[in-house]
Order: sequence, then structure tokens, then C-alpha cells
Amino acid sequence: MVDHHVHGVVGGELERGVFEELLTESDRAVPGWMTQFDSPLGFAVRRWCAPVLELPPHASPEEYLAARESWGSREVARRLLAAAGVDRFLVETGLGGGLAEMAALSGRPVHEVVRLESVLEEVAASGAAAADLPLRFREELAQRAASAVGVKSIIAYRWGFDFDPDPPGEAEVVRAAGAWLREGTSRVSDPVLLRFALWTGVEHGLPIQLHTAYGDPDLELHRCDPLLLTRFIKEVEPRGVDLLLLHCYPYHRNAAYLAQVFPHVHFDVGLAVNHTGARSEAVIAESLELAPFAKVFYSSDAWGLPELHHLGAVLWRRGMTRVLGHHVDSGDWTFDDAVRVARMIGRDNAERIYHLR
Amino acid sequence: MVDHHVHGVVGGELERGVFEELLTESDRAVPGWMTQFDSPLGFAVRRWCAPVLELPPHASPEEYLAARESWGSREVARRLLAAAGVDRFLVETGLGGGLAEMAALSGRPVHEVVRLESVLEEVAASGAAAADLPLRFREELAQRAASAVGVKSIIAYRWGFDFDPDPPGEAEVVRAAGAWLREGTSRVSDPVLLRFALWTGVEHGLPIQLHTAYGDPDLELHRCDPLLLTRFIKEVEPRGVDLLLLHCYPYHRNAAYLAQVFPHVHFDVGLAVNHTGARSEAVIAESLELAPFAKVFYSSDAWGLPELHHLGAVLWRRGMTRVLGHHVDSGDWTFDDAVRVARMIGRDNAERIYHLR
Amino acid sequence: MVDHHVHGVVGGELERGVFEELLTESDRAVPGWMTQFDSPLGFAVRRWCAPVLELPPHASPEEYLAARESWGSREVARRLLAAAGVDRFLVETGLGGGLAEMAALSGRPVHEVVRLESVLEEVAASGAAAADLPLRFREELAQRAASAVGVKSIIAYRWGFDFDPDPPGEAEVVRAAGAWLREGTSRVSDPVLLRFALWTGVEHGLPIQLHTAYGDPDLELHRCDPLLLTRFIKEVEPRGVDLLLLHCYPYHRNAAYLAQVFPHVHFDVGLAVNHTGARSEAVIAESLELAPFAKVFYSSDAWGLPELHHLGAVLWRRGMTRVLGHHVDSGDWTFDDAVRVARMIGRDNAERIYHLR
Repeated sequence: MVDHHVHGVVGGELERGVFEELLTESDRAVPGWMTQFDSPLGFAVRRWCAPVLELPPHASPEEYLAARESWGSREVARRLLAAAGVDRFLVETGLGGGLAEMAALSGRPVHEVVRLESVLEEVAASGAAAADLPLRFREELAQRAASAVGVKSIIAYRWGFDFDPDPPGEAEVVRAAGAWLREGTSRVSDPVLLRFALWTGVEHGLPIQLHTAYGDPDLELHRCDPLLLTRFIKEVEPRGVDLLLLHCYPYHRNAAYLAQVFPHVHFDVGLAVNHTGARSEAVIAESLELAPFAKVFYSSDAWGLPELHHLGAVLWRRGMTRVLGHHVDSGDWTFDDAVRVARMIGRDNAERIYHLR
Repeated sequence: MVDHHVHGVVGGELERGVFEELLTESDRAVPGWMTQFDSPLGFAVRRWCAPVLELPPHASPEEYLAARESWGSREVARRLLAAAGVDRFLVETGLGGGLAEMAALSGRPVHEVVRLESVLEEVAASGAAAADLPLRFREELAQRAASAVGVKSIIAYRWGFDFDPDPPGEAEVVRAAGAWLREGTSRVSDPVLLRFALWTGVEHGLPIQLHTAYGDPDLELHRCDPLLLTRFIKEVEPRGVDLLLLHCYPYHRNAAYLAQVFPHVHFDVGLAVNHTGARSEAVIAESLELAPFAKVFYSSDAWGLPELHHLGAVLWRRGMTRVLGHHVDSGDWTFDDAVRVARMIGRDNAERIYHLR
Repeated sequence: MVDHHVHGVVGGELERGVFEELLTESDRAVPGWMTQFDSPLGFAVRRWCAPVLELPPHASPEEYLAARESWGSREVARRLLAAAGVDRFLVETGLGGGLAEMAALSGRPVHEVVRLESVLEEVAASGAAAADLPLRFREELAQRAASAVGVKSIIAYRWGFDFDPDPPGEAEVVRAAGAWLREGTSRVSDPVLLRFALWTGVEHGLPIQLHTAYGDPDLELHRCDPLLLTRFIKEVEPRGVDLLLLHCYPYHRNAAYLAQVFPHVHFDVGLAVNHTGARSEAVIAESLELAPFAKVFYSSDAWGLPELHHLGAVLWRRGMTRVLGHHVDSGDWTFDDAVRVARMIGRDNAERIYHLR
């Protein structure tokens, strides 16, 4: 299996509060009257991760956290990653590092995906003048992406998908860069600069991953419906660059539509598989309604907790087995076709797009 | 169980036409070439309410209406409410009265939820001058809500959720009030006045119920996607006031997302459970994909027919049993966790938010 | 069964590339690294069409195409249409002809549905002056629709549903017609002219089919959410003209809502049944959540391949049997009610609206 979009593991021992905050896309403190363990994802941790720590399935949160502490975070990560059964990780490094550590913890090949906005912010922080920013960014991206297999855009977070689909002009970019640099904020959120980063990614030519829909409240979900990308997708089409829409929940049917009609559009239900827990079967089923099977991918989008790297793979395999098994039982599909489709989505499609072989 | 959003029962004997019109959210006459009994809700009435009137399950519409007439509307209401197994009703009184009657018919404790727009319309009708309207509304609301457990907004009906999220200024409110009073319509639909009513509710501090999405054609459904509230939700957050999104269909996944990421947002699939009949199981399942279980509620939004108070509870229990039972059968959840989650959603969460104990 | 929206069959022998392109709504070439057979629809062709060509179920694409060639396209069409079990076809002739041929191939009664935009484009191509276009179109439509059972609008493709719901004024139409004729394009895409065509359809009075949502990338899917029609629907209501929303995926729940609350709105999940293959069961189930059963229709929207005429009917019957069978097994519905609802949706509703008896 190839996990084509994943982040690193947070090191050190985690207090319960921190652990619970890593179990949700909310960036707010967990209120005192509830626990994040009482959620689809929390139940999945107790069910599927507890046995990897040699606890019975459905161990209590207290038992689970005690076992975690007793094994130590490094051993916990090692065990959960090994038991995930993932053969390669494509690590998006925009949240900071993680590449070498993921290789060490998992013992598996890792590949880098470079976050466009992080590179742009680093160039700005390095003291580039506004007039030089476009060239400096292109150069830095070329260097950083030389050993990467893809790039990633978080324009969904910083603006939304309701942006002008055309590439911005150079003068416009310099003007926006000037305003940004004068403002002195490290975070890039001007739509002209975000479009510049994205289109520079298109020029570069590697497959482009786009965070789509479900994520933390830094984004406005309805402005991240992938259908809002339709005109951008059409403009990219003649460039021959692949677009990979990540997560997409609750707009995964919309993403599947785009993947059916545009040859260069692909998608996954990544993050949603983890967070919907026992219901991920339903989300996976819906993701397989309209798209050709060669256009669907697997990712966990795990970040921070190795539980997420583990559960992403476990729940995806379990969901696929149940959904495709249902089609086989009903006589709609053959067993061989079901196995073949699972391999395409779990591995072959990613190997093809990212040239992993 | 706590039905945290419900209305009163229409008194008197009902002719078939009136009965059928109360079985749909349409406010149009039922066309002569169809019957509202041929709908998911109509089938559910015949299946689950008929036995309460001592008819066999699936009795015909004619048999059902004859039994209804023979028992008399009061006895029908008494039976259906008793068999609903609901322990408390939170009655939204904006459609007029119902509190004492619900207590009498059900023999259960009732609590009031005050509709903001009704109070504003009553203040206007009482002859307040535009300049006095803000103060008069605040005073009247304080008095009316003193014994209530929550307030309710129908801004979804009167405008939609695409409103300016900021509280309006006092001068702006007085100006809009002047225009409204000169116009002489009893119904408030000016967005400035609706925002004023809503923000006055926020200042008041009780939990705020918001009609969300599915409802009668007085609203425009796509303008009631709860995601359109995102900025308003963020503005309310520092005030420490709880927002309860009601019904939410077909945007219940969006509501669940908001409930995951914002600590003060909660939701139910209320009205949709009744109207989707045998399919309510699927709607309930989807509502349990993303939200922590402490943020999900039960309501029937029943109005008019005691059949709706009854079916809301029956279909919700049935749906929960099937959805959670499926998770238990598959080994994803324990039986004890399933029971605990059902109690949280059916009762505990409402008791906590509305301070019912 | 009545297939209330369908197109003709493409004649002649088809090469594999052409066949695959007719298996998707994409109008792009199928990339070399994939086959359209690896899709929900492709698997359904192998499962359900292969036996009609005397192959085992799940025959390979190569075997299937060889058998197709060996039987000849005319015999293939004859067999697939006969085995579809459809009693009447309502053929939308806007893609060119097909009426007589469908009658000949299927041996079943056929009825015509006239595409508004095609008639308008023909009138323009015939050399009408801008000032005469309104009258000429009204006359031509009256003549063309005299023997038709309905008209069809593709405003979803040419603009989207975010149009001004009012009928345009005559002067406005003549002005827009002038610009269009000067431009010299055959394709009508000006929103004023599209609204004129649509409102002329309303004046004519026959049931109006509207392509809604899922379709080829000539449309922008999010601009085809049927809820965007809400104000237009309200304006049409007093005219007493029926509106039939076709396909509607992934907005079929929204369409079902409109069908519940507006007496003159009806819908189907047409095209989506074919393209979701083994998952069409889920789409059908969702389409039966909110609408009265008298408002739901069956269509295949088949075009080009007789496989689509066949599969539409097979998958719909199979999906209905499973969805309604589930309700019967669970005790929610009676068997007799399930059969009655299947007949309403599969036949009776269409016979009523289109006066087919």
C-alpha cells in the first residue's frame, strides 16, 4: 500500500489533553464536559489501536493512555506504523520536517511532497524584496522539489476555492508581495500570492495535491467544495499536470464527478476515513460511485499521532473489504475484480502518478 | 428521553385533507391525483401509529382515519404521546401556545423555548415606536425568557443564513424598525431586524436553537446550509453561548462538521427523522460520522399531529438501534458504548445544555 | 415500465475507443493508462449485458467487444432493448433523430420530447431576423410540439440554474437575438435567450423536463443544483405546468425536497443509476427519503449505446427490489405497498403526467 499524503509523528510523551486535541480537526481546547474519545475516531482508537499495544480491543481511554505511556511514544509509533501494513509513505513536509523520522520509525521508503505556501513563506522570511519574490520562489521551489514526487497547495485553508482561475500577472504578484512584506506577517493569505504559488506549481509540472474540504476551522468548508475548482481545472488541463483532490468530505461525490470527467483529476477520501471511524465504510462506498477506479487514491492524512497512520490503513482496508465484498456477494462484481480494484486504489494508481517504480 | 424541540398539538377533529397537509412540509394543497399517505412518513404512520390506536400495523389510510375519529383527537393525542416514551418536552411556543396543553396531554414535564421573532413581532404590534423598539424588545425578551430554557431563531425562514454576521448598530436597527412599522406588516423579514433579534438572543445568554435547512417552502433551502453560519458562529464563540442547529437535512454532514470543530455548536436531525420514515436509519447514520457524541441531540420538531411526536421518538430509537447495533455486530463498538451513546444523544446532552436537572 | 427520458442508439460498428467514450460522461479521450471498463458502469456492462449476448456474466472487455462485433450492432441493440423490459420510450430528439429508429429497434411505442434549445437554434439557422425570432420560435415550437408529450430544457448546460427567474421582456429578447445572430454561432448560450426558450416552453404548457446536475463537463455542476431553481419554480407554479428534474445527482436529495413541497415538481435519478453501477441501490434509496411516491420517475437517459437503455432498467429494478425489499424485510413496509410504489415510479406516474393512456 502507498499512503500518498501523510505527515510526521509528534515526538515525546503526550498528556491526555494534547492526545485528545490530536484526535480532532478542531483547534479549540476540548471542553471539560466531554472527551474526544467519545467520537467515531475515539472509538476506533480503542478498538483497533489498543490490541497493537497488547491491550484488549475497546480498552478504556485510561487503560489506553497508560499503555501508551508505559510503552513510550517511540515504541508506540514503531508498533502502530509497522502494523499499518503500508509500504511507502509520501510525506507532506509543510508542517515541518518528518521525512527522515518517518523513514526511521516505519522502516519504509518515504518520498517528499513539498508544500507550496511553506516555500513561499520561507522565501519571504529570508528577506527577499517584493520585486525578486517571483523569481526567488521559482528557484527555491525548483530546488526543493527536485527530489520530491509532488507538491501540495493549501489554498483551501488560506482563501478557499472561489479564486480567480487565471494565473496572476507578474506585476500584480509583485504588488501583492510588496503589501505582504510591508505587513510583516509570516502567513501568506493574499489570493494573488496564493494563485501565484499554485500556478508556479503547475509550471513546475509535478502532480499537485490540493487540500479539499474537511479540515480544521481555519477554513470555511463551503468555500472548499471541489466543484468551485472547475474553471481552474479546465485551465490546467492543457498543461498535462495531474491534480489530486485530498479528503473532499462531505463533497467526495463532487470530487468523484470531477475525476470522471477530467482525465487529469484524481481524488481520495483521506482524512475522512480516520475521522468517521466505523462509518468510513459508507464514505468509501460513496467515493466509488462515479469515478473510474484508476482515479481513486488512498491516503491517511495522518498527522501527529501514529494512531492515525495506523487507523487510516486499517479502516480503509476494512471499508474496502466490506464495500467490495458486498458487491461480490450480490453477484455484481467478481472476486478477482474486487482484489484488482483494491490494489489499484491502494497502490498501483499512486505508483503510476508519482513514478514510484 | 428529552425531545429538545417540539411544538404543540392541533386540537379538534381533523378532516382527511387537513390531516394529510400536516403530514408534509409543503404548505400547498395536496393535489387530487395523489395522497400524502403515499410517502415515507405516510407509510410510517400506518406502520407505527396504527397499533397505538389498536389497529393492525399497516392499516389503510381509511381505517386509520376512522379509528382516529372514533377514539377522538384528545384520546389519540394522549395515547400517541404516552407511547412515545419521551420524558420531557422542550416546547417552542412561537407557533402559539401549546405549553400547558402539552403538559396536560403528555403528563410529562414541559419547558419553554421562546421564539425570538415572535417576541419582536409582538412588541411591534403592541405599538412601540421605532426608537423604542430595541429597548422594548430586550425587556420583553428578558421577561419572556426568564422561565424558558432556550430561545429559537427562524432567520433561516425569514432571510436565510447568508446574512452579515456582525451585530447591527443601534441606529441601523431603529432605521430598519421605522421602515418596518411604517410598512405595517406584522411579519419581520428585514435582515437588520432579524440580526438584531438573533444578537439580542446571544446577549441574553440562553442556548439558541436555529432552524436549519429542511422545512416548508417559505425558506430557500440552499440559503440555509449551516456552513453559511461559519462566520457568525466564530463571532458568537467568545460569548460562551451554545448554538443548536435543528434538522439540518440534507446538510446534516455539514452540521456535524461544525459540531466537531466548534465547542459551542450542537445539532440534531430532528424533522428529517419523521419525514424520511423507513430511511431515517440512513440519516441518523450519516449524522454520527463526524461529531463527538456529546454534541448530538434528539428532537422530533413535531407540530400539529401527535403522530409526529410519537413517530419522532419511535423512528429515532429504531434508527439508533439499527445503526449502533450494526457497529456492535461488526465488532467496531461495544454494546455498553452503544447504550451510553444512545443515552447521551437521547437525554444526557439535552439535560446538560439546558440545565434540566 | 416507461422510460420517460431517453435518446437514440448510435448506429454502425463501434471501435473500442468509441465504445469506451460512450461509457462515460467525460467528453475527453480515455487516457492510455486506463480503461473505462474499470468503472462502476463498465463492471455493470460486463455483469448484466454480457449474458444478453450469450456470454457468461463478467466476461472480459475483449470477449464482450468481440461478441458485440460478431452479433452486429443492430442485433445487439435489438437484444438489449428487448431484454430491458421497457414498455414505452419517451425519446428526447434534441441530439438528432432517433424516434423512428427507437420504435423499429425496440418494437415498442415511442413518444417525442422536444428540446427547446434545438428548436431555437434551428429557427436561427433558418435565417430568421432578430425581430422575428420570438414569434418564429413560438410558431415552430407549437408545430414541433404538437405531436410531442413534453419539452426539454438544457439551460443547465448552456448557463446553469443561477439565472434570473423572471421571463425576459420581448425587447430584451430581440436585442439578445440580434447579438447572437451577428455573432454567427449556432449554439445558443445567452441567458436571456435561454430564459426566453424556457418560458416559451412554460407558455406552451406541456410538461417540462430539465437536465439537472450530473452530466458532461460542458456544464458546471455546482451551478446546476436544483435548489437554484427555487424562485423559477415558484413563478411557474400558478401556470399549472409540471417540471421534471432529471438525474439530479449528487443533488437528488435537494430535488426530492422540491418534489415534496411544490405540487408541480417531479424528479428522477435517471443518468446516475447507470453510471453508479452496483451502487445505484444507494442512490435510489436516497431518492426515496423525502418525496411523495407520486412525484418520482424512472428514466435511463441512455444515449448512444443500447447497453445504457438496458442497464438503466435492469439496475433500477434491481435497486428498487433491494431498497424496498429491505423495508419489507424490516417490517416497515408491506409487500403490497412495495409493489405498488415500484409500479407508480416505474410506470403510473409517467402515464399520468404525459397522458400516455
